[in-house]
Amino acid sequence: MQAKRSLGGHTLLYPTPVLVVGSYDESDKPDVMTVAWGGLCSSKPPSIAVSVRPSRLTHANILHHRAFTVSIPGEEHVQAADFFGITSGRDLDKFELAGLTAVAAEHVHAPYVGEFPVVLECRLLHAFDLGAHTQFVGEIVDVKVDERALTSQGRLDLSAVGAISFMPGLEAYHALGAKLADAFAVGRALRPSHE
Amino acid sequence: MQAKRSLGGHTLLYPTPVLVVGSYDESDKPDVMTVAWGGLCSSKPPSIAVSVRPSRLTHANILHHRAFTVSIPGEEHVQAADFFGITSGRDLDKFELAGLTAVAAEHVHAPYVGEFPVVLECRLLHAFDLGAHTQFVGEIVDVKVDERALTSQGRLDLSAVGAISFMPGLEAYHALGAKLADAFAVGRALRPSHE
Repeated sequence: MQAKRSLGGHTLLYPTPVLVVGSYDESDKPDVMTVAWGGLCSSKPPSIAVSVRPSRLTHANILHHRAFTVSIPGEEHVQAADFFGITSGRDLDKFELAGLTAVAAEHVHAPYVGEFPVVLECRLLHAFDLGAHTQFVGEIVDVKVDERALTSQGRLDLSAVGAISFMPGLEAYHALGAKLADAFAVGRALRPSHE
Repeated sequence: MQAKRSLGGHTLLYPTPVLVVGSYDESDKPDVMTVAWGGLCSSKPPSIAVSVRPSRLTHANILHHRAFTVSIPGEEHVQAADFFGITSGRDLDKFELAGLTAVAAEHVHAPYVGEFPVVLECRLLHAFDLGAHTQFVGEIVDVKVDERALTSQGRLDLSAVGAISFMPGLEAYHALGAKLADAFAVGRALRPSHE
């Protein structure tokens, strides 16, 4: 056991996902912003949480339409995903500048990034005030995946598109690395032998 | 833009973190369970959300002591992290079976895994009922990091310990891959030239 150093209270966690949140403004202009504070939060209803500061356009948009999408970038989209996080849709058309396509979601009133390989369509369930951020909890009403990111059996296969992690302490995006082990399996060896 | 296939509403997101949640039961016996449904959720107060089913021992523990820790495993701990997720502390001593050490947190009444490189000490702020899971939001009152996971300037350096992602659609743990780009930087090139 190594000695640990205390760094005080701050937001350190890894990996975090790169969640590109899509919404329409009051005049139905599509916008996107990138969020790393978020994750799955319930299995039934299938739900995802994304945290957004009240000053952001996305915040007003989600409350207005009670819907959002989450587009997950492939490796080739790291520049666009970063751009979506460091600019505001109040000042410019993010889709146009990134050369990407706003596609209307099928089940909710929100746009998604057509070129990104995986998309979640979400209906707003809750908006929790957590201080600096509002946490929006959305029911995932549909998941859409590019054919190239699916096996012939319809299972997720990210080998063609990759997956990006954001590393808060390192201020960097990383690719997904090698498989280490099967989940719900590798830990069985530690169970007592009588089980 | 590729054709997308609709997979219906379910919990698909990647990468997800591997969060080992530590808590004491009513008699102060330490327990841990592994959670992938969670993430950072506010910058001020610095906060993390972890989702736990009401049937789990951890659920009762957190409500009883209003505290928990999150220990983040290094690559070498993938088997223990999986084991902590597929067994219940009601039936056995998970720390003992994994050969790991329960260390009392400094600022909250909860134990953490001494051998894991990064630890968050959390004070319970909210418990939101989200259906199948309760989402516990904790203020991160301290972050503790192994000396071997810090640079000489005190910044995070995971090269010695690694980072594990859980990939829900693949039911696998993956290592962190190569750095793709600097965050808050690579996207600047897409800004209009007059900025």
